[in-house]
Amino acid sequence: MKIETKTQEFNQPLHLESGRILEKYQIRYETYGELNEDKSNVIVICHALAGSHHAAGRYGDEAKPGWWDKFIGDGKVIDTQKYFVICSNNLGSTFGSTNALSIDPSTKKEYRLKFPILTISDIVKAQMNLYEKLGIKKAVAVIGGSMGGMQALCYSIEYPEFTDTVIALATTAYTRPWAIAINKIAIEAIRHDPAFKNGLYEKEDLEARGLPGLAIGRMAGLIAYLSPTLFNNKFGREYSRTDGLYELFGSFEVERYLEYNAYSFPKIFDPLSYLYICKTMNIFDAGRNKDKLEDSFDKLKCNLHLIAFKDDMLFFPEEMEEIRDIMIKLGREEQVTYKLIDSKSGHDSFLVEVDKFEQHVKNILEGK
Amino acid sequence: MKIETKTQEFNQPLHLESGRILEKYQIRYETYGELNEDKSNVIVICHALAGSHHAAGRYGDEAKPGWWDKFIGDGKVIDTQKYFVICSNNLGSTFGSTNALSIDPSTKKEYRLKFPILTISDIVKAQMNLYEKLGIKKAVAVIGGSMGGMQALCYSIEYPEFTDTVIALATTAYTRPWAIAINKIAIEAIRHDPAFKNGLYEKEDLEARGLPGLAIGRMAGLIAYLSPTLFNNKFGREYSRTDGLYELFGSFEVERYLEYNAYSFPKIFDPLSYLYICKTMNIFDAGRNKDKLEDSFDKLKCNLHLIAFKDDMLFFPEEMEEIRDIMIKLGREEQVTYKLIDSKSGHDSFLVEVDKFEQHVKNILEGK
Repeated sequence: MKIETKTQEFNQPLHLESGRILEKYQIRYETYGELNEDKSNVIVICHALAGSHHAAGRYGDEAKPGWWDKFIGDGKVIDTQKYFVICSNNLGSTFGSTNALSIDPSTKKEYRLKFPILTISDIVKAQMNLYEKLGIKKAVAVIGGSMGGMQALCYSIEYPEFTDTVIALATTAYTRPWAIAINKIAIEAIRHDPAFKNGLYEKEDLEARGLPGLAIGRMAGLIAYLSPTLFNNKFGREYSRTDGLYELFGSFEVERYLEYNAYSFPKIFDPLSYLYICKTMNIFDAGRNKDKLEDSFDKLKCNLHLIAFKDDMLFFPEEMEEIRDIMIKLGREEQVTYKLIDSKSGHDSFLVEVDKFEQHVKNILEGK
Repeated sequence: MKIETKTQEFNQPLHLESGRILEKYQIRYETYGELNEDKSNVIVICHALAGSHHAAGRYGDEAKPGWWDKFIGDGKVIDTQKYFVICSNNLGSTFGSTNALSIDPSTKKEYRLKFPILTISDIVKAQMNLYEKLGIKKAVAVIGGSMGGMQALCYSIEYPEFTDTVIALATTAYTRPWAIAINKIAIEAIRHDPAFKNGLYEKEDLEARGLPGLAIGRMAGLIAYLSPTLFNNKFGREYSRTDGLYELFGSFEVERYLEYNAYSFPKIFDPLSYLYICKTMNIFDAGRNKDKLEDSFDKLKCNLHLIAFKDDMLFFPEEMEEIRDIMIKLGREEQVTYKLIDSKSGHDSFLVEVDKFEQHVKNILEGK
């Protein structure tokens, strides 16, 4: 599989939904496979909160491959011998696209807390500009889970000519207060961490010492991304240390898991990016804050395929069913499918239980 | 209704499960109604994590009455014209019983992080010592929800002669990793808050400025105590501020609710108490860490009444059903009842939806 990682710079302004403008910006993106001559074999993959453009394959001596490597590759369901797959790092994210640590051209300093709030529409708009640069007018499919699913829905509504097939997994048409509340833990933990310094932290300091506030916020996410049943099966009540029972700060296996994964997170993820992305997710509403989801979904020209996960504790299956029901109400039942996966890994099932839905996606892509 | 709030001091040592000893200790407790001559009209109420001995009635100009005031009082289901109700502040808690800020007699200083880890059994043992002082040998019933339900289960197993009726609501026979994980957010947020100073904070500082770490930990609790449906109904996607959409740190109603309730919490609750109580809950296991729940429940002489709440996201109904199933497996089906309440307030339903189970409790108390 051919992998290329590139950065596209844009020297024209991006007009944001907020009314603010990014005078210039860049998108880091990765591609898998070869673009065919008439540029008709493109599949767009959209990533989630903590994800990146590195969706598949392995760089050099990397221990872990890209986040959807089970799904994307030569001979896999998203077959890179056939398709040219593009995954962009979301605008605002920490992995190379313009974000709060980028230089504000008007001040020549990093934006920090002066970075504008981005919406899912802004992120997708920037990606559309990338495709224009690449001469790509249409995609075979747009696929994404969680925040990537929000982007997929946004493509279907705002760029109805761009693709005939949208696959949205483990997502929602508008973020409910439950998910906003979970993000709130991160927001508060980051802003109250003295090391955050109201966004003026030294990057070197964070790299050396981490930011506990971001780790604690991530911990809330790690819980919400999994499920009680998974926790029971994976951890039970095992101790990781022999003095477990009487160690005040905790020593259950589940605590060790959370510590390890939460405290390693600030080493790879920037706290300002985390704040901005949480905000982007919180304000996502495919009904444009007007309680008019019907109006939005009535714009669809593509077929919309919804995949929900039974034990998803972040975006509950009911939220995906609501979209299906709207499509049916609009008389668009032939344009929508809904599949509920009997998952065991909570919200993260869209990442780790690929075997449970890959045949379904294969059938969709093959028009079966 | 007659209310009395008292403190009982114990000058004999309390031998703890850990092997450690509290040389002396005290219990703050509250009583409602009048103890009858033969001391046979006692009902014991056990409180939850953030609760206190103040279960009913109102002190002077208090804005809110005790936490189970709907349930306890003259003419109410737990009728204080008939019963003498006792609620003790849990050992380790912040409202007047011995806790981490108490004076260690061996050093004449506050225990702080040298306070011993307590178990639910230790808490109940201290309460039993209180009843002995009061000359009470038997209770009509022991009733508690959440951590109070853990205590109720502990009474049924460890003091099988003490009461014929135990009512445990919204609780579990052993804390699962899901609940441990939620408590972990609090533990990490408190210990990493620089104001915590490894337990050596100045009390005056906390009173003046609060401890964001405890507030953030409380926030995780506030989410887990409610439910996604309640959040949808209560908050929707309303904004509390007009600049809502583009206010980075958040301005949804649900965020305002969390801010208000979380940041007011450190004013009334001590962070060390919170840490110790989280730990007590985390290590609760009625099977004594030996996977022998059957052995424990085979000791029961009382009737055990289990009340679970359908949308409880902290201690799921399945956890209560497991206890019922064990009782049935033990051939003790006549000693157990299980009622699932069609609740709408999540875990907190045991506090706020009293109207949905009070008749059931009345029937139990009247032997119907």
